[in-house]
Amino acid sequence: MSVTFASDNNAPIAPAVLRAIEAANEGDAVGYGHDPHTERASARFREIFGADTGVYLAFNGTGANVLTFGATLRSFEAVVAPATAHLNTDECGALERITGCKILPVATGADGKLTPSLLEPYLGRGSDAHHVTPRAVSISQATEFGTVYTLDELRALCEVAHANGLFVHVDGARIANAAVALGAGLRESTRDCGVDVLTFGGTKNGLMAGEAVLFFDDALHGGAVERARKQTTQLASKMRFLAAQFEALLTDDLWRANAEHANAMTARLAARVAAIPGVEITRAVETNAIFASLSPAAIARAQAEYFFYTFDPVRPEVRWMTSFATREQDVDAFADALERAVSR
Amino acid sequence: MSVTFASDNNAPIAPAVLRAIEAANEGDAVGYGHDPHTERASARFREIFGADTGVYLAFNGTGANVLTFGATLRSFEAVVAPATAHLNTDECGALERITGCKILPVATGADGKLTPSLLEPYLGRGSDAHHVTPRAVSISQATEFGTVYTLDELRALCEVAHANGLFVHVDGARIANAAVALGAGLRESTRDCGVDVLTFGGTKNGLMAGEAVLFFDDALHGGAVERARKQTTQLASKMRFLAAQFEALLTDDLWRANAEHANAMTARLAARVAAIPGVEITRAVETNAIFASLSPAAIARAQAEYFFYTFDPVRPEVRWMTSFATREQDVDAFADALERAVSR
Amino acid sequence: MSVTFASDNNAPIAPAVLRAIEAANEGDAVGYGHDPHTERASARFREIFGADTGVYLAFNGTGANVLTFGATLRSFEAVVAPATAHLNTDECGALERITGCKILPVATGADGKLTPSLLEPYLGRGSDAHHVTPRAVSISQATEFGTVYTLDELRALCEVAHANGLFVHVDGARIANAAVALGAGLRESTRDCGVDVLTFGGTKNGLMAGEAVLFFDDALHGGAVERARKQTTQLASKMRFLAAQFEALLTDDLWRANAEHANAMTARLAARVAAIPGVEITRAVETNAIFASLSPAAIARAQAEYFFYTFDPVRPEVRWMTSFATREQDVDAFADALERAVSR
Amino acid sequence: MSVTFASDNNAPIAPAVLRAIEAANEGDAVGYGHDPHTERASARFREIFGADTGVYLAFNGTGANVLTFGATLRSFEAVVAPATAHLNTDECGALERITGCKILPVATGADGKLTPSLLEPYLGRGSDAHHVTPRAVSISQATEFGTVYTLDELRALCEVAHANGLFVHVDGARIANAAVALGAGLRESTRDCGVDVLTFGGTKNGLMAGEAVLFFDDALHGGAVERARKQTTQLASKMRFLAAQFEALLTDDLWRANAEHANAMTARLAARVAAIPGVEITRAVETNAIFASLSPAAIARAQAEYFFYTFDPVRPEVRWMTSFATREQDVDAFADALERAVSR
Repeated sequence: MSVTFASDNNAPIAPAVLRAIEAANEGDAVGYGHDPHTERASARFREIFGADTGVYLAFNGTGANVLTFGATLRSFEAVVAPATAHLNTDECGALERITGCKILPVATGADGKLTPSLLEPYLGRGSDAHHVTPRAVSISQATEFGTVYTLDELRALCEVAHANGLFVHVDGARIANAAVALGAGLRESTRDCGVDVLTFGGTKNGLMAGEAVLFFDDALHGGAVERARKQTTQLASKMRFLAAQFEALLTDDLWRANAEHANAMTARLAARVAAIPGVEITRAVETNAIFASLSPAAIARAQAEYFFYTFDPVRPEVRWMTSFATREQDVDAFADALERAVSR
Repeated sequence: MSVTFASDNNAPIAPAVLRAIEAANEGDAVGYGHDPHTERASARFREIFGADTGVYLAFNGTGANVLTFGATLRSFEAVVAPATAHLNTDECGALERITGCKILPVATGADGKLTPSLLEPYLGRGSDAHHVTPRAVSISQATEFGTVYTLDELRALCEVAHANGLFVHVDGARIANAAVALGAGLRESTRDCGVDVLTFGGTKNGLMAGEAVLFFDDALHGGAVERARKQTTQLASKMRFLAAQFEALLTDDLWRANAEHANAMTARLAARVAAIPGVEITRAVETNAIFASLSPAAIARAQAEYFFYTFDPVRPEVRWMTSFATREQDVDAFADALERAVSR
Repeated sequence: MSVTFASDNNAPIAPAVLRAIEAANEGDAVGYGHDPHTERASARFREIFGADTGVYLAFNGTGANVLTFGATLRSFEAVVAPATAHLNTDECGALERITGCKILPVATGADGKLTPSLLEPYLGRGSDAHHVTPRAVSISQATEFGTVYTLDELRALCEVAHANGLFVHVDGARIANAAVALGAGLRESTRDCGVDVLTFGGTKNGLMAGEAVLFFDDALHGGAVERARKQTTQLASKMRFLAAQFEALLTDDLWRANAEHANAMTARLAARVAAIPGVEITRAVETNAIFASLSPAAIARAQAEYFFYTFDPVRPEVRWMTSFATREQDVDAFADALERAVSR
Repeated sequence: MSVTFASDNNAPIAPAVLRAIEAANEGDAVGYGHDPHTERASARFREIFGADTGVYLAFNGTGANVLTFGATLRSFEAVVAPATAHLNTDECGALERITGCKILPVATGADGKLTPSLLEPYLGRGSDAHHVTPRAVSISQATEFGTVYTLDELRALCEVAHANGLFVHVDGARIANAAVALGAGLRESTRDCGVDVLTFGGTKNGLMAGEAVLFFDDALHGGAVERARKQTTQLASKMRFLAAQFEALLTDDLWRANAEHANAMTARLAARVAAIPGVEITRAVETNAIFASLSPAAIARAQAEYFFYTFDPVRPEVRWMTSFATREQDVDAFADALERAVSR
């Protein structure tokens, strides 16, 4: 069985999720979300996040981000986001191309977190014709570096955004990992802090494919979201199979068990790595990612055995991730390989 | 078990396809298509369509269409298509929004087919600054009305397009149904007639979700297609699961068996329907769709028992479709229901 | 002095307009419209069209059209327009590229006019995710064929549009010619019939360059129009010089005198042409354009002497236009040339 | 006569330019650039910049920038530019909206200049699907801060760009002021350093309105530029009047005389300002702009007498600009006013 430490999207489908797909594969179902599975998945999201939550399933994270802003922004409105945000750096400009809107990238510290003071220069701008109007703040939770905004940090950010007429979007590709790290519930970690829209990640937490865009205030899109989903190519015809996966993920807190395991495997790896001379952990390890610096030669030797990404070839800095499917023996074997790579 | 006659996308996953997903669910796999399943599915496509075929998997049909043109057209270039084309009428303007390009819609006859003479007015246009430049012809095979271009018709269309510097795209959401109707192979029905790009439909022929964009001439996109796929939000991270589905569909000609069955069920239904007074079949029945006219009251009674779409509420005209999963007893029971609906 | 019958945009600047530019060329003026000339031109427009008229100057007609819809439409909303509309056929797809919105082209009769019954199929559409939502009707007045909607026709169109939640835009590149033909005032011919947005043409009626977008209901753009103008590249920095031109055009009804002259010269030409055997006038002559059919050889001979456009090379059909600057002797000499061209 | 120190676009039309408009106002001229004035202006540009220069006139600077990139970039290609670039901060996101492309903003020093080392992180990127591909470098010369790249700096930047497959665009809204500051010719300051595309500013140097996009390598747009100009709404119908202005500007080096005067007036003002206690000049004064810091109260008092912009209200920092039309007595009176404002 192949094992990588490249990304939690290298993982397979969680067994319960696959069983849910199988169970949903019975007879016909009306397409495009007018089916009982979508109804039940939506109901489950509403139980968790509040009865007025707008639930819109999508295929993938880039799609979920683009449909969020495609449904909410006018062309002269902009998204303020950390410069390192996935939607700014890793989605090939999809947001600009599809929505025509600008991302205003903010340089952050090593933790990749936006703060009220970093946000400050983008606030209180009038609406003169020459400048785009910041309308949304988008942050990733967990961040692209695996760090986690505390509930207080999140609340403070939402407060200053709202006070200035901006809404807050959380790219929650790894929201489950963050909630686990916070020891908090899903709603407690998002909506209750003031978050307005959450793209709830499924793929990296055990689905075959699937993200859910959750609007805690459907007025934000003014009725546009269904059409925005179609326009951004994210409307699944056989949607029952996306929905069934979420039903499984939200049953018996599978989302939490999966994320706990992934985080625990990273913690296990970090403990081993911390003891390896020649490997320096470069950022706080708070969820299921480790960023580390080691020699180019050591990287090359490790990559000869295991697939993982070099995040910054100059420094150099690498990233290692674990998933719900990573096993203790995988971690231990990888740590052994790192030791060998460094010592040689 | 619920049964509808609304669309072949109301169908479940074909059993062999689901088994392929299960079989692919083993261990880690590198994301974004760098995995053995994607390699094998691509190789299988190349065996069928030619060794130089560019294979790009996508989530759904709208996405496949948009990425095709997003990868090939400059902003001032246009797509000539039947006015009734799915990409013109049923994709919520996704092509215009994402590519910025114009569709030039052509009114056709009841069969929904473009012909060289209908194409004529769009050809030989220079490249002056005031007008968009037609660059592609897009047709659906089978058409939106379930009719099928003959190989001769297709060849003639490709010839005139090529002679005028346009390339030909086939929206093959139901290419399998068309090939079966033609009694021809997949390559014989497409590339060998001159088609340049085919979006090969999987979803309606038994997949959970998945379409393949096949470029028979990768020069058409000039290296842009991978980035266009990402930008149009159609790049799956766990792509092995899209690929595994196609592996199954292309193994032992499952695509053909599925389409044959769907077409046969429609033929069975058509035979019954033809004998029902008060129901008039309005267009040639050549694949897995019947268009028919009956009284509004009869439509209402039938829709009380079965889900299907009213295609044109004015005439009125309805559409009935069958899929690989439709059973003979489903057809018979539906025909009985139609008889009751009309006679009451 | 060169003379053409190609387009009213081949004309020079009307003398009074040029004098207004000269007079405005005194000292500094704050840019982007915050100057006294813009204030005065806007005030003059408001006197004519109503005190609550939103006035937004722009460089050219394509820009005026694009900014209108860029300020008003969401990406899934569409413009219903005659297939022959300038914004559909002669602006190189600018509307689609810049706004991402779809134009729904309607085939019309030889007069190029949209009618309530032609509009019918686009009305009453729900807002389901698969289809764009018609939001605006755009017509040209005078039409692209020089014909003119009667006030009753215009009222009827506005009524049915409004009853279905659509607003009405008039591309008034030649609104002055139409008002003169109608014997009606500017407001009477537009706003009083129910028109919601008018792009008021200046260039073809004697300006060096300049169009005004007039919103009779600023709620339509919800505060977006200034930014939409900047985004669509139509915000002039030295706007006083656009404004001064409009001041002149709206002073002492210069707009009317110019249009009356242009229309009269076309009437003069039409009278001569009607008597030339071998030239058939193909469409009603109502403003400053004549469409006519004559032999290819005759066209070639006439074009050897005078510049004008072949509108349809197949039929063949040509277009002749006059402007405020066309002189009687120019018309007579051109008619003589046509006689020679035909008789040879 | 009103006087401002806000921007060189507050200036009137230079007398010789206005006379050229008047002289061009004779008879008809074929539209859209097929006229003798456009031919002559183009020829003049080619004399200056090289016989193979592609010359495309446009209305304004935002339009010139957008058409440059609309003609050259594919949707996944990006522009690297100083974060302070006009096209990044002052064009309301026009580039993103119209081209769909991303700007990659680079933080610079107080001089606003991009350097090879600042460019470094954007170079050598492969073309993987996740990231946009840097394709162009865009710099302003003079910069937004009135500073000037030396010829060596420009050459170095072009060299590293070209070596990495990027082309270099100069936003030359104030290229004349820069050339004068460099004591160099227009070609010497641009093309000869390696610049590939220049938007040559006319408006700020004495035109009523007009910019020229000059391609030193027409292969960059592959034949798209005429259509891109139309699509970006920058094609003037009565283009002879744009062209005539450029003819005047390029005759007897009027461009140079105008820029020399503007720069000289700023130098005169800077000399006075340097001697005013309480006013600190914050950036190098090299062309026709001064950035300065003084107390909020002093700013308010000065703005009560003269119109100028507060560039940064936090610091606070203001900007003062002069133009070809600024007179010595205007400068002296303004300096007196500043002295009063500060001393009170």
